[in-house]
Amino acid sequence: MQSFALTVLHEDRLLPAEPGTRRIARRLYESTRALPIVSPHGHCDPAGLAHDVPFADPAVELVTRDHYLLRMLYSQGVPLESLGAQPRDGGPAEPDGRQIWRTFAAHCGLFRGTPSKLWLDHTLTQVLGVDAPVRPETADDVYDQMCARLAEEAFRPRALFDRFGVEFLATTDGALSTLESHAVLHRSGWPGRVVPTFRPDDVVDPERPGFRSNLTALGELTRADTSTWKGYLDAIRERRASFVAAGATASDHGHPSALTADLSTREAEELFARVVHGTPNANEAELFRGLMLVQLAAMSLDDGLVLQLHAGAWRNHNPALAARFGPDMGADIPKRADYVGALKPLLDRFGNDARLTVVVYTLDETTYSRELAPLAGHYPALRLGPPWWFFDSPEGIRRFYRHVVETAGFANTVGFNDDARSLLTIPARHDVARRINAGYLAELVAEHRMDEEDAEAIAADLAHHLAARAFRATP
Amino acid sequence: MQSFALTVLHEDRLLPAEPGTRRIARRLYESTRALPIVSPHGHCDPAGLAHDVPFADPAVELVTRDHYLLRMLYSQGVPLESLGAQPRDGGPAEPDGRQIWRTFAAHCGLFRGTPSKLWLDHTLTQVLGVDAPVRPETADDVYDQMCARLAEEAFRPRALFDRFGVEFLATTDGALSTLESHAVLHRSGWPGRVVPTFRPDDVVDPERPGFRSNLTALGELTRADTSTWKGYLDAIRERRASFVAAGATASDHGHPSALTADLSTREAEELFARVVHGTPNANEAELFRGLMLVQLAAMSLDDGLVLQLHAGAWRNHNPALAARFGPDMGADIPKRADYVGALKPLLDRFGNDARLTVVVYTLDETTYSRELAPLAGHYPALRLGPPWWFFDSPEGIRRFYRHVVETAGFANTVGFNDDARSLLTIPARHDVARRINAGYLAELVAEHRMDEEDAEAIAADLAHHLAARAFRATP
Amino acid sequence: MQSFALTVLHEDRLLPAEPGTRRIARRLYESTRALPIVSPHGHCDPAGLAHDVPFADPAVELVTRDHYLLRMLYSQGVPLESLGAQPRDGGPAEPDGRQIWRTFAAHCGLFRGTPSKLWLDHTLTQVLGVDAPVRPETADDVYDQMCARLAEEAFRPRALFDRFGVEFLATTDGALSTLESHAVLHRSGWPGRVVPTFRPDDVVDPERPGFRSNLTALGELTRADTSTWKGYLDAIRERRASFVAAGATASDHGHPSALTADLSTREAEELFARVVHGTPNANEAELFRGLMLVQLAAMSLDDGLVLQLHAGAWRNHNPALAARFGPDMGADIPKRADYVGALKPLLDRFGNDARLTVVVYTLDETTYSRELAPLAGHYPALRLGPPWWFFDSPEGIRRFYRHVVETAGFANTVGFNDDARSLLTIPARHDVARRINAGYLAELVAEHRMDEEDAEAIAADLAHHLAARAFRATP
Repeated sequence: MQSFALTVLHEDRLLPAEPGTRRIARRLYESTRALPIVSPHGHCDPAGLAHDVPFADPAVELVTRDHYLLRMLYSQGVPLESLGAQPRDGGPAEPDGRQIWRTFAAHCGLFRGTPSKLWLDHTLTQVLGVDAPVRPETADDVYDQMCARLAEEAFRPRALFDRFGVEFLATTDGALSTLESHAVLHRSGWPGRVVPTFRPDDVVDPERPGFRSNLTALGELTRADTSTWKGYLDAIRERRASFVAAGATASDHGHPSALTADLSTREAEELFARVVHGTPNANEAELFRGLMLVQLAAMSLDDGLVLQLHAGAWRNHNPALAARFGPDMGADIPKRADYVGALKPLLDRFGNDARLTVVVYTLDETTYSRELAPLAGHYPALRLGPPWWFFDSPEGIRRFYRHVVETAGFANTVGFNDDARSLLTIPARHDVARRINAGYLAELVAEHRMDEEDAEAIAADLAHHLAARAFRATP
Repeated sequence: MQSFALTVLHEDRLLPAEPGTRRIARRLYESTRALPIVSPHGHCDPAGLAHDVPFADPAVELVTRDHYLLRMLYSQGVPLESLGAQPRDGGPAEPDGRQIWRTFAAHCGLFRGTPSKLWLDHTLTQVLGVDAPVRPETADDVYDQMCARLAEEAFRPRALFDRFGVEFLATTDGALSTLESHAVLHRSGWPGRVVPTFRPDDVVDPERPGFRSNLTALGELTRADTSTWKGYLDAIRERRASFVAAGATASDHGHPSALTADLSTREAEELFARVVHGTPNANEAELFRGLMLVQLAAMSLDDGLVLQLHAGAWRNHNPALAARFGPDMGADIPKRADYVGALKPLLDRFGNDARLTVVVYTLDETTYSRELAPLAGHYPALRLGPPWWFFDSPEGIRRFYRHVVETAGFANTVGFNDDARSLLTIPARHDVARRINAGYLAELVAEHRMDEEDAEAIAADLAHHLAARAFRATP
Repeated sequence: MQSFALTVLHEDRLLPAEPGTRRIARRLYESTRALPIVSPHGHCDPAGLAHDVPFADPAVELVTRDHYLLRMLYSQGVPLESLGAQPRDGGPAEPDGRQIWRTFAAHCGLFRGTPSKLWLDHTLTQVLGVDAPVRPETADDVYDQMCARLAEEAFRPRALFDRFGVEFLATTDGALSTLESHAVLHRSGWPGRVVPTFRPDDVVDPERPGFRSNLTALGELTRADTSTWKGYLDAIRERRASFVAAGATASDHGHPSALTADLSTREAEELFARVVHGTPNANEAELFRGLMLVQLAAMSLDDGLVLQLHAGAWRNHNPALAARFGPDMGADIPKRADYVGALKPLLDRFGNDARLTVVVYTLDETTYSRELAPLAGHYPALRLGPPWWFFDSPEGIRRFYRHVVETAGFANTVGFNDDARSLLTIPARHDVARRINAGYLAELVAEHRMDEEDAEAIAADLAHHLAARAFRATP
């Protein structure tokens, strides 16, 4: 197995081609290889770890749940149903994992040159020990090997968590979550550190489906009167406290834009009333989200949660697809973003307060050098999140460093997020990032812009320490 | 001659400098060198091939008609008249090709580091066999050699077409074109595949000079009543049918923005009436162009034409120059573009239909990774056109791949367009692109992000197969 | 000393890592090393040279006055007061240079990977001959060495000016400046060429604090009636004449945007009245700045001053910091820019006039390839300024060339600006730029996109001749 894995995954993969630079990069990469994984932002299901049940079908785990794969296959005419996506109207979808995997394998050439291929090759060979490349003609063989492996004890979630060296894993949990799985995990006495992240979009964004019934549910859960501005804020504070009690160190907010708004209590009450009891227009909904970011930052100053802002996606750009399959099918599209104006109300109020940490992520790379690095290189409360989504890729990570470091330095960044949807794929993503980091730093060393001792320290910062510090991963 | 050409044009030009990567790139380039040329988008005059007459003066062909050269020379104070550009008021312009060439040669240093120099050096040495570099002191010698060559039988258009290995050449033809040259070509029995492209901007864009008289002419040509919305659409359908009959496989649309609009028939009729019979404002003109893109996409579903959208140029930014010389003098300037919102009406209606192919080109590189790759990597009907205009260059093509491939893959791109204005320059442009492609792929191989077998397959896709498939170049 | 400097500053620093390319780059760099320095844009205080007094405390000179250092330190929680910044309310600030330097040294790791570190290492080792690296534990030693050096005769401003090989140095001077230091310099008979630059923002931008009293002062200085549009323009012309008499070759304008406006005299008079005697809103202030750019361009046609436009900074983005410390504390943030529309009124009027030189600088890199290179590659009056501010850095300069040269060529750029705030740092900035230039050109040579002879000529253009020519530095 190992010998084959080496031909699929070269030991120097993703390191710079120039031999002298590669030698430096290899040393830097090796120096980070054994560092534990801090995963402060992702979408693994905590239930898997709570109950330590075997993974379900590998094709469902690795294909059906991966929006990167779904979108690319769909763009070339592969029906989502054939990949196991279930239409909302109960129409037929492929139920057989083996057949889903065959369909994927038949089109795997589409992923040449993409990070999806890098991640999958790593997951198959290094995590699952598959000793065949993914090709149409090997589909059944690979599928059988994956199934066999996932049936073994050593491939249960907790065993993998340990094997991967995960030191800290944050899941993403809605404001209405009972955090049941986290409670089970805690009660189990298992020492793995798995914590929730407070993601209140469902009760903060008036344009989310079910917003008003979510507020009702929030009131029931917290015994607060969420029909008033004050009661609503109390309910959110109450929920944050529950998350903090369950170990949370951060909140996360996925907003269409980075708009923030600092309104007077009277203005806030009026806007809340329009949003909750009236028929808010798009501008009012946007303003309400902006108002809430400032409110949430104020709460962070009290309870210490790091505030993550993921802005700039046009969710469900394809209405026909959303109607048929629901969200998260690969049809979210980035759009042009502004941060310099949008964040100003929040920064005017809290930007100089070093006790607060706001981590900003972008889908608009033009803001790296123009807006985000200058802002993060000045405001004590602001940190720059790692490349996100389409940019969590070799070229994307390189562009990030080249555009950001000269202006913001390394210390105003927060290391890596894997944003993984499956525990199985976490090591692959960290490995790609650590390799690209090593290559970038090696270029600085090879050009005598940094000495290797400094580069090694920064490689460790990027691989582990910055994330651990920013997200308070060390208890 | 050959030995000199090698000193002007190094055999490894444009390949990566790192020796290991260069060796891979050289192999990949060599593997594509003999592939035929598919040229699905350009501006060659079909009359030249129809009548197979010798090229006119080489300075007029290579300098006066090249807006890249005109603009750069003008920016440094060289009068356009001295380059043969004819003022509209009949004022004097240099009539002598030799003198035009001398003026160009005197300033040829301006083009160091630009693609114009790469293209011209290739055309002169490889196509015309000139055995002297372009310098002020060699101007007459080079001019004499070019003239001598173009007088030979072997340098007539059809002979060059064959020598260049052109498999498919699409010209660009207005909606009012009689396609006379294409008819002559067809009747001649010459086997070269030269087809028109339907470019109806003159009858679709209300802001084009002569728009209303163009509609009148369109009515006369098609015997349709172009004063009504229905008759106007019928006339366009009729013209498309003529283009299809003449071999067309695509339409092309040069719009100020990518705006699309899906209006009801009543709304469309009202807008048409305002645009054709009233005095439309800029917003109405813009909306009408957007409406027409959706209508044209609907027609494409019927007749199979690939819809190309070239958006984002501010045409004739320099009004004094436009008044003096007319359009296409190098004074068109790109502007900021939006696709995510602009294309949504069209995509909402047809984006999920894999029978349609919409190819989008941009002049705003910021949209590559933020908008176009995500869109093309999701919608079955959307493909991403190659780097266009200022970006059809070594650095431009590299940036395109680095920003696009990780998100859209290769399969959602459509290979190369030369956009050439002279048949003489076609091989140069494909050669530059194939070399840069090889270098990009070689970097992926050298970094073990792709194996060389896959890279060779993709090199052939990029050089030939993707364009042939997307533009239905194989009859 | 020299041997140590070599370990801090490798002789091949900033040159490409690939050995063949590095050899070319080294030759190109060496060919420019001895060229004199033309510094057409910066913020050195002319009083230092006028009176040739020793530099004050090195920590104040190199840290307290450097907004790059202040901002980064502040972003990581270091109080500006501890770096010597004086609160406006008279509150305490660290008065001791040694202590300021210790604070800086304690945090110097923040600057790894930034141009600040490159500049400082060069200044310390090459200019001041310090033979220890900057580290927390060497703080006192380095501080003592710097102080000792600055006390020597050979480190007085004029001696350094000569040693640095400065051929031309332009300072930046407000419209109300008496140019006293320049007069002293001139009278002294010292042959160094130090000239003022006319920077009239204080009397052109209605949103500047003190705008109206500045106009009063302007009237007093010029004996013109600055309460009328005509008198105001006369006063500005008068001041320009004084600057020209003092050797100025350029004006400089720092505007929030690049908007220009060409109004009729009546419209201009009305706008002037609203701006000076009424309460202009933000749009009117913006329009007035745009109006003035066109007026100033018209004046440039008369008096020959090169017009520099620095656009796109949101000044004093952090109001709490501005209130406490005033401007220039590192809290100016770039914002999205437009040039294609904004410059059109100015270009419509003067863009075709090669006697005018307008140099445009941007903080929005997305405009390089989309807007500025296309504009500069067409309009005879337009030139593209070098990378500015956050982009005057190794990665920033590389991106500039890669995005600009293919479209605008080299001849439409104007070489390097150091934008230095201290004479001590001028050589460092030119050295970094010359090295990066050499590396970029070496890549073109190594890829056979340019021959080395041409590259050497362009290296000299970029290092010296383009700036000398554009800014009329040769008397």
